[in-house]
Order: sequence, then C-alpha cells, then structure tokens
Amino acid sequence: MSTDTPTDQACINLRWSLTLLDGLIRGGMRDLVLSPGSRSTPMVLAATREPDLNLTVVVDERSAGFFALGLARATRRPVGLLCTSGSAPAHWLPAVIEASEWGVPLILLSADRPPELHGWGANQTIEQADLFAGFVRERHDPGPAVAVPAALKALRALGARVAAVAKGRRPGPVHINLPLREPLVPGPDCTATPATGEAPLPPLPKMDAGDPPIPQDLPGLLTGRGLICCGPGEHGQPIAEALHRCTAALALPVLVDPLSGLRFGPGPEPRIARYDSLLRNPATAAGLRPDWVIRLGRAPVSKTLNEWLTGVPSILIDPAERWCDPTHDARLQIGARPERFLAWLAESGLVVAAPDWLARWQAAEQRIAALAEAHLDAAPWGEAHLIRTLVAELPVGDALLCANSLPIRQLDTWSGTRATPLTVFSNRGASGIDGQASTLAGLNAAGVPTWGLLGDLSLCHDLSGLLLGRHFARPLLVINNGGGRIFDYLPQRALPELATYWRTPLPLDLGELAHTFGLPYRRVEDDAGLRQVLAAARSGDDRSLVEVRIDAACSQASQEAFWRRIAAPASP
Amino acid sequence: MSTDTPTDQACINLRWSLTLLDGLIRGGMRDLVLSPGSRSTPMVLAATREPDLNLTVVVDERSAGFFALGLARATRRPVGLLCTSGSAPAHWLPAVIEASEWGVPLILLSADRPPELHGWGANQTIEQADLFAGFVRERHDPGPAVAVPAALKALRALGARVAAVAKGRRPGPVHINLPLREPLVPGPDCTATPATGEAPLPPLPKMDAGDPPIPQDLPGLLTGRGLICCGPGEHGQPIAEALHRCTAALALPVLVDPLSGLRFGPGPEPRIARYDSLLRNPATAAGLRPDWVIRLGRAPVSKTLNEWLTGVPSILIDPAERWCDPTHDARLQIGARPERFLAWLAESGLVVAAPDWLARWQAAEQRIAALAEAHLDAAPWGEAHLIRTLVAELPVGDALLCANSLPIRQLDTWSGTRATPLTVFSNRGASGIDGQASTLAGLNAAGVPTWGLLGDLSLCHDLSGLLLGRHFARPLLVINNGGGRIFDYLPQRALPELATYWRTPLPLDLGELAHTFGLPYRRVEDDAGLRQVLAAARSGDDRSLVEVRIDAACSQASQEAFWRRIAAPASP
Repeated sequence: MSTDTPTDQACINLRWSLTLLDGLIRGGMRDLVLSPGSRSTPMVLAATREPDLNLTVVVDERSAGFFALGLARATRRPVGLLCTSGSAPAHWLPAVIEASEWGVPLILLSADRPPELHGWGANQTIEQADLFAGFVRERHDPGPAVAVPAALKALRALGARVAAVAKGRRPGPVHINLPLREPLVPGPDCTATPATGEAPLPPLPKMDAGDPPIPQDLPGLLTGRGLICCGPGEHGQPIAEALHRCTAALALPVLVDPLSGLRFGPGPEPRIARYDSLLRNPATAAGLRPDWVIRLGRAPVSKTLNEWLTGVPSILIDPAERWCDPTHDARLQIGARPERFLAWLAESGLVVAAPDWLARWQAAEQRIAALAEAHLDAAPWGEAHLIRTLVAELPVGDALLCANSLPIRQLDTWSGTRATPLTVFSNRGASGIDGQASTLAGLNAAGVPTWGLLGDLSLCHDLSGLLLGRHFARPLLVINNGGGRIFDYLPQRALPELATYWRTPLPLDLGELAHTFGLPYRRVEDDAGLRQVLAAARSGDDRSLVEVRIDAACSQASQEAFWRRIAAPASP
Repeated sequence: MSTDTPTDQACINLRWSLTLLDGLIRGGMRDLVLSPGSRSTPMVLAATREPDLNLTVVVDERSAGFFALGLARATRRPVGLLCTSGSAPAHWLPAVIEASEWGVPLILLSADRPPELHGWGANQTIEQADLFAGFVRERHDPGPAVAVPAALKALRALGARVAAVAKGRRPGPVHINLPLREPLVPGPDCTATPATGEAPLPPLPKMDAGDPPIPQDLPGLLTGRGLICCGPGEHGQPIAEALHRCTAALALPVLVDPLSGLRFGPGPEPRIARYDSLLRNPATAAGLRPDWVIRLGRAPVSKTLNEWLTGVPSILIDPAERWCDPTHDARLQIGARPERFLAWLAESGLVVAAPDWLARWQAAEQRIAALAEAHLDAAPWGEAHLIRTLVAELPVGDALLCANSLPIRQLDTWSGTRATPLTVFSNRGASGIDGQASTLAGLNAAGVPTWGLLGDLSLCHDLSGLLLGRHFARPLLVINNGGGRIFDYLPQRALPELATYWRTPLPLDLGELAHTFGLPYRRVEDDAGLRQVLAAARSGDDRSLVEVRIDAACSQASQEAFWRRIAAPASP
C-alpha cells in the first residue's frame, strides 16, 4: 500500500475513489458516463485524473444509462455509470433492466450518504443498496472511504472483479454503492494516488469461463427433420462459420433473426430470413414443420415463427445457461459455446443429412423473396420500401439501431439477407420503446457509425436523448406515421378507443424539434428522398434528424395485401 | 357475485379489471394516469367504462409517474398509474421514491405477462413484482384473472384496501402487479360488470388511524428555553391553529420552513422565517440557542438551521412515526397528531413561558427583514428579487412549485412570510431535480393553478414533461443562469473542473424549446418584466414558459455581501 497515508477525509475519499477506478480500469473499463451531483465529487475528481478513462457528462441519469448501454454494446467492454445520491440512480433502472436481459456489462457506481444518515430522514438519502434488485449480477457496498490498507486492497480487487463479472459467462450490470463522508473536495495538499503499493501489484481477480461437456442424451432428440433457429443475440463470426459448416455437412436449414447478427454479411449459406412471410401460407407451414429444432439466442422477433415452432422439441444452446424457451418445448439446455457445439454436431454423425429438406426451404425462401420484390415494386412507398433500400444501401461499416414495436417487426419481414456485413442493434432484452435516442448516441460515441430507425413515439419517450445529438455520426430516421401503429396490427385495432388510448399520436413538429436540439432536419416521403439522405451521409458525419412520412393506412393495406397473397392456397 | 359468469378469457380479464377498479374507486381513487401498451388493455377498457374515473394518457411512464404525483399532492387522494409489462413500470421508480419519502398515495398498477411466461425468456417479460422494493407500503400480485368468486371478492377488497393504505397513517405508494392472459380484447358479446354481486355490497376494508397516548416521560425534557421547528410537511390549518395557541400561551418561538405549509397565510404569530439569515451572525446564533426543540415534519431545507440545532435535544412529533432526525438528537418520538399534541402541551403546564425569549427572536427576525429589504432595494436584480415579488404578488388561490437545489434554498432565504395563503409545493422527499415539469402539469391538472419555479437543469431533466404543457394554468418560470449554480455555493466552486462536471450548462434556446412544445414564451430580465408576467397571468389561464435571465455571478456576489453584512459583529 502507498506509504503516504492521507489523514483528512476528503483526501481519503479521493484515494478511495482512485483505487476503485484503478481496479475497474484494470478490469477493462474505459468509459465512464457521469451525471452531475455533489456526493459523487470524489469519484469525479478521481476519474478526471485517470488518463485511461473517457468521460461523458449526461445530465439526465436515465439518458446516461441508455447512452452507457450503447457504448457498452458497441465496444463490448464494461462501461461505468456514476451519479449522486437520492433518486438519481433510480433513473438508471430501465437501462439496467435492458442490460440485464440482453447481457450488457454496465458498472453502476452510485454515490451515497454514509450509514449514519440512513434511516434518519436526511436530505437526498434513500435506500440505494438494493435499488436494482435481481437485475444486477452482483451488488456491493464497500462502506465509506477509509485509509485501512486491507479495505483498499479489497476495493481495488472489487473493481477488477465486478468488471470481470460484468463481461463474464452471464454478462450484465453490476452495482457498487459508494457511501462517502464529507468533506468531499480535498485541498491542494492532497497528493492521493491509487493504493496500489510500492511492491509489485497484487494480482487482480480474473475469470475463466470454461466450457461444459456436451451431454450424452442428445442422440434420441435428433431423429427426423431438424432445423437451427438463431434468435436475437450477439452471435459473432466463429458462430457464423460453425453454422455454415454445420448446414453444409448436415443440410440443416438455418433461420436467422434480424438481431442474430447472422442475417447480413458472411454467414451460413443458405440461410432463411423470410420465414415470417413464408409461414403465413398454411400448406407451406405444415409441409416444412420440423421434428426438432436447435435454438441459439433469445426467442425470435417473429411471432409467426414462435407460434409455428410451438410444440417442436427443442435444444437450447446457451453459454449463459438461460432458459429462452417461452413455449416450454426445450428438452435439453446445453451451456456450451455455440461454435463448439456446432462443430461437434457436424462431426458427430447424429444428424442424417436430408438435402431435399433443405432444398424445399431454399425454394420457399426464394419464392417469397421474388414475391416480395414484385409486391414492393408495385406498391405505394412505405416502411417496407424504406427497409429494402436501407438494407441494400447502408455502407459496409455503418450499423443500424432498430427500435422495438413496429420497426423491428417490419425489418424482420422485409429485410431479406445481404452478402456484406451490417450490424443491427436493438434493445431487445426488455423490448421497451425507451432510451432509443440515448442508445444511438452511445453507439455512435463508441466509434460505430450507426443509423437510427425509430417510430415517433419512441423518439418522444427519450427526448433528452436528443441533447446527446452531438454524438450522432449518422442520420436518425424517425418514422412519423401518427403514433403507435403497432396497435393497428393487433386486436386493439377494432376498439373505438384505439386512437385515444393506444395509438396516442403526439403533436410535435419534428422539424422544430430538430432545430431546437441543433440537429439538421430533413424530410423524406419517397425512395428518391431516402437515397438523397443516403448519398449525403456517405460524404461524412451526418447527424440529421430525418422525418420519414408514411401513410400508415396505405402502408398497412399494402402489408396485409402481401400477406393475403402469400396465404392464398395457390400462391407460393 | 354477478350471476352471468363469462367463460372466455378476454371477458374474464375485463370483469377482473372492472372489479379491481370498483374497489379502488370505492377506496377514493378518482384519477388514473395511463401509458399506452398492449398487456394493460383489459384495465384500460375497464377504466373507460368507469364514469367516476378521470383518465390521462402520458406516453413516457417516468413523466406519467411525476404527473400522478402532482395530481395526488394537489387532490390529496390516491392516484392510479397504469402501464404495460417490461421496462415500462421501471420508469415510475423515481416518482415512486419521491412519493414514498414524502408520503404521497400512488396506486401502481403494472400489467404483466402471466406466470407461465416468467423466467423463460419471453418477450417484454421481466420480474416486476419486486420492482419498487422498500419504496411501496404494500405489494400484491393477485395472479391472472379468473372467474372464481372468492378471488373476485378478494380483488375488490384489495382495491379498497390499498387505497386506504396509500392514504393511511404512513401514506405512500402501493403496488399491484397484474398478470393477464391473452386474449386481451373481448368481443362485443362481453357484457362484463364489476363482480359486486346482486346482494348488498360486501363491506370493504377501511382504516381508522387512532392516536397513541402521549408518553409520561416528557416533563424532564422540557426544562429551560425551547422552540418549535416546523420542517417540510403537509401541516394543515388545524396544526397552524394549534401552533398559534401554543406560542401564545407559552411564548415559544415557531420556526417555519418554506415547505411546512405554515410560512404563508394564517398561522402561528409571531413566526420566524428568517432563521437561515439571522443565524449567520455568530453572536445571535449563540444567544438564541435553545435547550430543547420540538420538531414537526422532515428536516428543514436550511443547512444553517440544521447545523445550528445539532446537539439540541429534540422531541419528534410525527403521526407516521418516522425518525426525521439526521443529527441524532431526538430524545423522544411521539406518534400523535401534532394538533393534538400541541393542544395538550399548551394546557399541560410543563413549559414555563418566557416572554423575553420570544421577544428576542421577534426582534432578530424584524432586524433581518429590514436589512433584507434595504439590501434588495440597493442590489442588482436577481433571484432574491424574483422571490420577493412572487411571494408578495402571487394571487391567493395560486400555488407555487419550487424546484430543489438552488431555487428552494433561495426561497427559504428570501421569502419572509405573508399574511395571505400561498401553497408551496416541492418534491422534497428525495430532493431530486427530476420530474419538475410533469409534477407541475399534475398539480395544475388537479385544478390547483400552480406556478413553476425551476432551474434550467431541472427543466432539461424532464423535457417530456413539456409534452404535458396543455395542463399548465400558470406560467412556468425557468431561471436561466447557466447550469447548476448550486455548486457555486459549495466547495466544488474552487475546482478547475467546475463548469465541465458540476455546472454543466446546456445549449438549449428556451424560446425555441417553448415554441416546439406549443407553449407561449416570455423573457424576463427585471422586476418590471416579472410584474408584466404576473399581470398577464391574472387575466386567466397562462401556460407560458418564462425564461428568467439571471446574471449568476452578480446574484451570488449580492447574496454573499448580504451574508457578510449579517455576520459582521456590529450588525444585527
């Protein structure tokens, strides 16, 4: 431990904070998103002294939470959040829930008042230690800052440990509550450094996520025709390659969700992306029904697919050992890394290849793709065209953040696949309409140039995210179709109260909104306009708010005409 | 129970919802604030069928939470919140924390997916039942809707019970999590009514908060000179009258916090409101120090007062039996209603009146009032003048919502008292800068015409509250002084990073912001401008956003000059 031990509390607070940050940084944290406040002062001062830490100030803690979520998703590193005591950390909760469900490493650092003020009606003092309940992987309260060497050693280890846990086998948020005693601002004579000692640094905790063995009772489950269903998840290139080898060897159809990371760019070939449409033909749906399914990731976006797969025995492959099985058809959950399991499966001899089975899937996919092209060529411009053009034209290297509710379903239906990579982000853990603009800012701030695709209500849910518009590097496309149009596709559509209590259109002029927040504004009403936006964004950073005007009724009529055409007995 | 029992789930869901609402309405709930979503559909449909229920739609659940908080504070009735499943109810948490700390009756109704979808990775499904942890008085999960008569009877009773608990001895939020099975939209043949039966209505639970006896060990604590300190709390007219009788009979000084409800309008006379200033003179502070203090409500806003009272034995009077005693000087906590305790005290003979003691307090108060007047007459226009004019000129019947951080401290310092009533609201439970515009909308929507007084950062923390601007009936005054100026009064002021990490001014043009949200805009830079705003608002509803430009450095210099003058040995 450091030889010069400070004796005044402000300096002890600063060294305490430096020591915790040292552990966190060694654990891989590089970004800290902070919201202003008084009680967090020692941590802020410590953070400004850490050259390895990138600091961003966001006034609204809710927006800060989603910004950090975007940073963490883009960088795949743990990202810290810091705020003052009281209701401030409570604003993180929606982002923490999303991070917990999707598995995003957030380090929640909430400043707190010391124990002697808790439970006595002190100002801005609430019970923070359990604020995130089951949505954090670990929660810690190391107590107020002290100069005790063992406590400092523990704190530094804690920093490295929570960073390791946050990105471990079951990634997600962790919480350290930090009670701090006044005074908070040290004098100029405080020369605190992290308490790392003069001897060689003590070792810090790391994690080694091994791989469990593949169970022996698999063979009986793999008889007959099977398929692989890749749901939302961050399935990277090793999994894509393993899938390709697997489908090539075993002729297994691979269904790829738009959020699987496997629909765009090099991946398993052939792959099936049009299932939400092709399964709307009853004969096709019946003829292609499998005897078993291997599932990766979360439940797919497509309700049609989820319902169709209900009752099909499934095998879950998930290194986080989650039970993503809302229809309760899993017969087996395997905690192996998917690439390892798939490589083993391809060689195992357990699956008998049925080339005709795969060919039928391919044929159905191609029929739907052709039908969709023909339909869109004839139909009035709408969301489907928007998505087709975006998927075709977004430059390699650009990413897309697609909001929940209607946009992600329309992306699912209309995207098809593409040969070049395209990363699609979505907050699909809890599937809220919240935090979209802030998440988009975080993704862009991390250096991943990302387009936004949101509905008008999503935008309004996160207005303070527009205060982070300076981080945008690509346009934010806002589909203005007069409120929550997903309800036009649900049973609520028949209700006389539809507009008042479900669609709830908002009276904002998006041009004025963009201007107020200092964002360039564009309006798009057709494919030519969209292509102009795409061309403009190619020449460099572009943080326009682009209002995409859609005639919702017309778009819905076109969508439903397409589905009717598919569903007709004669058709595909 | 109703004779025609529906058998389809959608109709069962609707009757279930109608029955719960029936209980809640009989328990006193009249307002329901709902955010759009699918899972909550049966509750929304039920609510639209309840003529006694006033419905407001707010897209952002966080804003909805604070809007409901404002409604509940203004109406003093339980107010319901309804939203869909997933991260939606998590956005309520900041308002729930404030409601818990201040004691505001909110009824949290979170729609949820049924148990069979929990823990299996189903979309938009998280663990909601414990979302509000210790911040709710009760939490319930009555399970999915069924047609079982005993379950319906229990549900109706639960509605009335939670409404009673929410406004009971320890008022605050309550949570009912409502899992609902699909289908959610009933057909036209569903003629559900609340399951109240055809026989006379079964009795519903009520609460009778008795009054505990006054303890016998009080006499030893009341020797020497005492005072009564009224902190923040909703102390109504009976308490004001009891205080007046008490101070008249016993010559006890009564210190009234700006949020005590006792500073403005008929109340105890004399009353002391200038303590934050007068205690800054060391000789005065020493000479007026009491031997004991009776405390009502929460800890006062004034840090000067709190520090000065540290070490003085205190007696807490709180019917909610809270320990509002951050300095740990309480010798006794009495759970009696203050008016009853004070009436008893005035008659008890325990306190020996010392008229000279009260006269010294009165003299000090009058000296400071005169000094303040003289100082303000000579000083450049700033927050102090704004507050002086507002307190003098706000019409009887109008109320004021004062934000935390700097505004409430400045109101405390400069308001003085006034003879006519003025209700001052503030979210002083957790003292956050959050939710101010939404709370203001809720107060106004409840029929209490309320002015807002916020800082620029508070406004930016709750931008979506501006979407509720149609509810405003009085101007929203936004003090634009370039960010969080409270830090200019705290030790952080000396830090080179002050502007970047604490003040954090935002680049919004408030005129453009007002225009975007459809609010009239005015700009005020002096007393004449403020008086024009006051005059305009007298002629009827006025929902202007008024930007009050303050030169923060000048204002601070004036404030500190005043404090120096008071502190000088010769002065008061």
